[in-house]
Amino acid sequence: MRTNKNDFAPTPPMGFNSWDCYGAGINEAQLLAIAAYMREHLLPFGWQYVVCDIQWYEPKARGVHYNKFTELCMDGYSRLIPAENRFPSAAGGKGFRPIADRIHGMGLKFGVHLMRGIPRQAVHANTPTVTPGVTARDIAQSYSVCPWNTDMYGVDPDAPGAQEYYDSVFALFAEWGVDYVKVDDIANTEYKPHAPYSAAREIEMMRRAIDRTGRPIVLSLSPGPAPIDAAFHLKQNANLWRMSGDFWDTPEALDEMFRLCERWYPHVSPGCWPDCDMLPLGVLSMADRDPAMRARKTRFTESEQRMLMTLWCIFRSPLMYGGEATLTDDFTLSLLTNRALLAIDQRSAGNRPLVSNEKEAVWTCLDETGAPVFACFNLTNEARTVVCPHGLAACSATELWTNEAVCLTEGETAIPLAARSCKVFRVSGSEE
Amino acid sequence: MRTNKNDFAPTPPMGFNSWDCYGAGINEAQLLAIAAYMREHLLPFGWQYVVCDIQWYEPKARGVHYNKFTELCMDGYSRLIPAENRFPSAAGGKGFRPIADRIHGMGLKFGVHLMRGIPRQAVHANTPTVTPGVTARDIAQSYSVCPWNTDMYGVDPDAPGAQEYYDSVFALFAEWGVDYVKVDDIANTEYKPHAPYSAAREIEMMRRAIDRTGRPIVLSLSPGPAPIDAAFHLKQNANLWRMSGDFWDTPEALDEMFRLCERWYPHVSPGCWPDCDMLPLGVLSMADRDPAMRARKTRFTESEQRMLMTLWCIFRSPLMYGGEATLTDDFTLSLLTNRALLAIDQRSAGNRPLVSNEKEAVWTCLDETGAPVFACFNLTNEARTVVCPHGLAACSATELWTNEAVCLTEGETAIPLAARSCKVFRVSGSEE
Amino acid sequence: MRTNKNDFAPTPPMGFNSWDCYGAGINEAQLLAIAAYMREHLLPFGWQYVVCDIQWYEPKARGVHYNKFTELCMDGYSRLIPAENRFPSAAGGKGFRPIADRIHGMGLKFGVHLMRGIPRQAVHANTPTVTPGVTARDIAQSYSVCPWNTDMYGVDPDAPGAQEYYDSVFALFAEWGVDYVKVDDIANTEYKPHAPYSAAREIEMMRRAIDRTGRPIVLSLSPGPAPIDAAFHLKQNANLWRMSGDFWDTPEALDEMFRLCERWYPHVSPGCWPDCDMLPLGVLSMADRDPAMRARKTRFTESEQRMLMTLWCIFRSPLMYGGEATLTDDFTLSLLTNRALLAIDQRSAGNRPLVSNEKEAVWTCLDETGAPVFACFNLTNEARTVVCPHGLAACSATELWTNEAVCLTEGETAIPLAARSCKVFRVSGSEE
Amino acid sequence: MRTNKNDFAPTPPMGFNSWDCYGAGINEAQLLAIAAYMREHLLPFGWQYVVCDIQWYEPKARGVHYNKFTELCMDGYSRLIPAENRFPSAAGGKGFRPIADRIHGMGLKFGVHLMRGIPRQAVHANTPTVTPGVTARDIAQSYSVCPWNTDMYGVDPDAPGAQEYYDSVFALFAEWGVDYVKVDDIANTEYKPHAPYSAAREIEMMRRAIDRTGRPIVLSLSPGPAPIDAAFHLKQNANLWRMSGDFWDTPEALDEMFRLCERWYPHVSPGCWPDCDMLPLGVLSMADRDPAMRARKTRFTESEQRMLMTLWCIFRSPLMYGGEATLTDDFTLSLLTNRALLAIDQRSAGNRPLVSNEKEAVWTCLDETGAPVFACFNLTNEARTVVCPHGLAACSATELWTNEAVCLTEGETAIPLAARSCKVFRVSGSEE
Repeated sequence: MRTNKNDFAPTPPMGFNSWDCYGAGINEAQLLAIAAYMREHLLPFGWQYVVCDIQWYEPKARGVHYNKFTELCMDGYSRLIPAENRFPSAAGGKGFRPIADRIHGMGLKFGVHLMRGIPRQAVHANTPTVTPGVTARDIAQSYSVCPWNTDMYGVDPDAPGAQEYYDSVFALFAEWGVDYVKVDDIANTEYKPHAPYSAAREIEMMRRAIDRTGRPIVLSLSPGPAPIDAAFHLKQNANLWRMSGDFWDTPEALDEMFRLCERWYPHVSPGCWPDCDMLPLGVLSMADRDPAMRARKTRFTESEQRMLMTLWCIFRSPLMYGGEATLTDDFTLSLLTNRALLAIDQRSAGNRPLVSNEKEAVWTCLDETGAPVFACFNLTNEARTVVCPHGLAACSATELWTNEAVCLTEGETAIPLAARSCKVFRVSGSEE
Repeated sequence: MRTNKNDFAPTPPMGFNSWDCYGAGINEAQLLAIAAYMREHLLPFGWQYVVCDIQWYEPKARGVHYNKFTELCMDGYSRLIPAENRFPSAAGGKGFRPIADRIHGMGLKFGVHLMRGIPRQAVHANTPTVTPGVTARDIAQSYSVCPWNTDMYGVDPDAPGAQEYYDSVFALFAEWGVDYVKVDDIANTEYKPHAPYSAAREIEMMRRAIDRTGRPIVLSLSPGPAPIDAAFHLKQNANLWRMSGDFWDTPEALDEMFRLCERWYPHVSPGCWPDCDMLPLGVLSMADRDPAMRARKTRFTESEQRMLMTLWCIFRSPLMYGGEATLTDDFTLSLLTNRALLAIDQRSAGNRPLVSNEKEAVWTCLDETGAPVFACFNLTNEARTVVCPHGLAACSATELWTNEAVCLTEGETAIPLAARSCKVFRVSGSEE
Repeated sequence: MRTNKNDFAPTPPMGFNSWDCYGAGINEAQLLAIAAYMREHLLPFGWQYVVCDIQWYEPKARGVHYNKFTELCMDGYSRLIPAENRFPSAAGGKGFRPIADRIHGMGLKFGVHLMRGIPRQAVHANTPTVTPGVTARDIAQSYSVCPWNTDMYGVDPDAPGAQEYYDSVFALFAEWGVDYVKVDDIANTEYKPHAPYSAAREIEMMRRAIDRTGRPIVLSLSPGPAPIDAAFHLKQNANLWRMSGDFWDTPEALDEMFRLCERWYPHVSPGCWPDCDMLPLGVLSMADRDPAMRARKTRFTESEQRMLMTLWCIFRSPLMYGGEATLTDDFTLSLLTNRALLAIDQRSAGNRPLVSNEKEAVWTCLDETGAPVFACFNLTNEARTVVCPHGLAACSATELWTNEAVCLTEGETAIPLAARSCKVFRVSGSEE
Repeated sequence: MRTNKNDFAPTPPMGFNSWDCYGAGINEAQLLAIAAYMREHLLPFGWQYVVCDIQWYEPKARGVHYNKFTELCMDGYSRLIPAENRFPSAAGGKGFRPIADRIHGMGLKFGVHLMRGIPRQAVHANTPTVTPGVTARDIAQSYSVCPWNTDMYGVDPDAPGAQEYYDSVFALFAEWGVDYVKVDDIANTEYKPHAPYSAAREIEMMRRAIDRTGRPIVLSLSPGPAPIDAAFHLKQNANLWRMSGDFWDTPEALDEMFRLCERWYPHVSPGCWPDCDMLPLGVLSMADRDPAMRARKTRFTESEQRMLMTLWCIFRSPLMYGGEATLTDDFTLSLLTNRALLAIDQRSAGNRPLVSNEKEAVWTCLDETGAPVFACFNLTNEARTVVCPHGLAACSATELWTNEAVCLTEGETAIPLAARSCKVFRVSGSEE
């Protein structure tokens, strides 16, 4: 019987990703410290993936600015391997295996980032691939370059040895014990020759490569905006994909996510998770060049942070914490450990918008018990009354951030909301 | 409690529409003869709507070519009324009420077509609307014209009296007993100033107008291609909307519908039906200017006709028979009365493509009993083997066009298909 | 021998146009008063055309807001004729003939505006055209409407009688003694079905219609932006055409004109004049709805007004004064009567930019004596030094706005310019 | 006094280019043999440039297919130098100097091709540039790659050392004695990030670099289509630039050139030559992979070859012979040595189309004596009569391909033309 990639991520993946706090520069000690924090404080709530983001193979990487054309660590088959100065346990050709073992030992799962393609360094040095007689030069798509990073050329899907190269990369990941791969420079349509969605065939090669490993590695595609016309292809091949460009902590980006969720929600299904991107909460940008910005707190207000968590959960987005987890403050922790909200993210049904415009949004779903949930959002900078529809008789309900009991009357209830805030109600004592 | 427009069409509407056979020119006798045929042969299978298509208010209408700027029949409030020379029972201001009564008396439902807007004739004659002091001139959007028909100007949603005008139009329809309105020149984005989706606010006015009638009139929008970015808005306001331009009996149009279904299927839900357009089956084009084309048979092969019916049903499209129903031959009737296929259209779940490319397609769903259904299509002009996946143990299945028993083996079964043909299997004796 | 339309406007037309001061509402008395002023003060400097802009056929026209679908004055052949309440001398079917005679009697020439197409009023009333058996309805292009005015439908170039209709319109103009026609809704590509440049064939019909009158009527096309890809077609058919949308007195519009001139200058040639649009100088907007804006002075600073006149002249644009001429103040008059600048507009050669970027521009030409001219512009809001190249030995030069003698040194001279200002030098005592 | 790049090419450059016959693979012996032929047979007619096209620095280059990521010959400052196996005289660091000397000794001028940018090989090897402390890596624009060749990265105009690099490249060319540089991957807008016209600033760097050499090197930009909106910038910086993609010997390409000439002709001026591309005449494709295509004759009929030469000349295009010159047959030679046509290319005025549509074209100019010239083209596959306008009294004229005397009557003359043919008349005995 065939492997079904949808089984690899039956619910939206939850975990930590290092980009928002360390950019390209996290090291082994930092990663393991965060893993330890995760095990202690977040794993009990379902946060299981620890994902090491971009350029773990770049010895001098630091922060979010890449060194152009810099030397990368590769093995003899033109595959990237961890930089030992940053990940000492990788010494002796062990790769990420020791770190994966440590993380697995904590009950967590381990993820890595991968740039689409083959290192330009390999191509210009014309190094071998696993396929005898095929060198890096032979399989590179010469004009297929990332607009913001110089590490890779795309792989030409028509070149003999191309599939084998990707097979070898994912086989190495499987050998290391990788559970999750975030592939980058692949799901949007900007800057590419022969766009739109020019990397479609590289996505297919990766799908095959993963299936051939026999390991249920989750496949995540970045960045967006992924083209909605390609939704079927994305669902056939990947487990999650980004709906937007990089999401950071600005009101405009949060508002835009409402619009994107409105478009993509019908495509949410087990194993297929349109991705709102990482949660820029807590302490971010640990290595920013600007000292004033370094180790800064999220710019979102507390109220906006609740809006964000509510939207991500009721949309059923993957949840990847972007803050330096070991520095998590109590408020942030309260966001990440709201069991009622997390249950909605992981186990609700019928999730959809009822209202969605530039000023307000109302989303609904049924929670795991079948209880109706309504989330009401005020996107404006003034207080606003949002009408929450409810199709049944008078009932008692609970607001899930405050645990207050409220009454949603028959038909509609006018919900007063402060500027840029939300309330989310679970109806009890009645059924839709 | 609020009206919920989704209740007006809980399953995909099924019925007859006069465009494919009579263009703009059907008359009362023809319509009632078709209704009588429907009652006798098709109503028992669920075909219930009898829809009179465009220009029932145009005395000289005939076929598919419109008379430019011709005189239209209007009442004193700038509303269109049936041309009495074509619909004699409308005499004496009775409008479509007598015909609706006749059709209702047969157990059928009655639908009419409506061009978006207000008659240009009313605007240039500056006739009254129901709103005192507001004339047709005041509410017309002067630059909003249909590219292919001269009857109307769009209605300016910001004009005082605009909503009242649409209210009055739908109130008249309700008074007549209309159950279904196919609004035209409204859901695509071509040719319009300030496109895309420039008619969004007219759709909203119509939604309000229908809800104010208190009558559960189904709202259908034409033509497409409706923009997929507007899916949420369409689902909020309409019951069905076209995914394509006019569908006629060509292989290219059929192939294109597979691509459109692949994009739109996640938006199919009760009360919200992306529409594959009418079924150009049986005898068509009764008034074609070219005698050789007049009263012609569909150009689709029998095999393609089964492909069409299979796709429409497994996608859950509305089903509107376009042929001259009274001339229906046995083969066509067999297509329209395949209870198994129709049940899939009306009462299946989980409908989605498993494979969708230029050469082949496989769709699946669960029928009303929970039995898995697989439809395999060969889109090429050569014989082809299509792999039908099945997730369970060996089982017996039935091909729904031939009633042949077949065995789908565990995992995958290679299905041989003749050029441009399909097979559709319902699995029995096992569950997914 | 064939008529050559280029002979109709061998130099850029100069005159007055009523739009900027009276919008659609000028009347006979106002027009003749302006003509009298022109004869007295501006004709000696070459300003010869007096052009009555849009809707002289609309009895209730006033200012720049059109009455939607209002009644227009037409003759028995669906042609527009002057509204007698505004142009009393037109009574008795005399049309514009009496006014043209008066204006010709002053030594001036007379121009009128024309909307592309045939009156919608004629189409909906189905009135005759000059062609027996052909009515307005027969020749209207039903979907071809202006986005900002409801007067007309486009004329279908494939309809029998279409050319004859335009022939009849221009024959009437010729009969009246019209010397110049500004056709509107014709040269840009916005809002039109089947754009770009969708009105190309209507332009050709007008070209033929004018040539058939035997009268050398200048043909001006509005509004822009005319598509530069259509330059050859425009030059084959028209005498002037707009490079931009309506030009008003804002710094942004002035800056944009530099960019447009940079693109279009190679197309300037006798009889073919890309048009910078009217000069919004002096007193404007005589009938503005906002009393505070009514009869307002141009918003351009004096320095910007000189920039404008300099650019228009060294580019060789048509010059159409838009202010209420009878209220012309001394400064404005000085702009309009600078003989040196006007001579450059009318009789220079080799006009081209030497520098053209967002901060500065330098244009050059040879004046009618062969003397090199250099115009240096500072487009920024700070003082700036602009390098004026000069290919010859040290020389004396004259600044043409101040008549100051200056010395342009060999090679290059750094010209200090105040914020948003210009200087224009004519080199004397040497030749390029 | 400043250098004026327009003086470097006061008339359209004429010469030979190696691409059409040898692709990337010409060698020293072939080049010098062609130069010898040029001196003997074509130099007396004005053909003076001998241009070595792409990849003279690639040891294994052959034909029109590039070796991906192959090793290139560079000097110590990351500059390309000739491959000695192909150009033996370059040994000992002498570069193209010996070949240039030989060619200059024949009275000819020497041109080379250059890919925009800096070799990727230099970037990945991080080799020095002339600027101390600046390596190839520092100045490469990482995402700026050619879609069809892997040799180079673009140069980042904002990088310190970028201008110096281009300065060093052109200084080396000047040292070698190069008279003409055809820069490639630079004038079109396809495939580039941040298009349109994304290489504008690299063009400016090259302009500066050439001016700093003090040598009047002609700058040619390829491929097109160059964007017409950038015409001013092109004229400011280059001597010639391509209006189209690569021109080969197909009827469609020839027809398209008429449309491009119609758009670009107003931009033709001394030193600024929109380029119709090389003349694919005589014997082409000496190294085609397909033996049947190798050393093939041009596919143009003789009549089409005359059309081509006529259009190129009356438009005043650069003329670069693309055939293997030493194999030139008599007919081809007759095309290249028609003194009357060549004089029109080099020394005519007022060149412009009078008619230009899909079926026919008429172009006119005044030759060096002031005699009117008319070229009439039939673009269709049937015989056709084309009207040749002539503004003067009856006259005698000469057809310039046949030397036949003909009479062009007053006003217009109907010229019968065979399918896909042209006639070109010089009027004698009268003046326009």
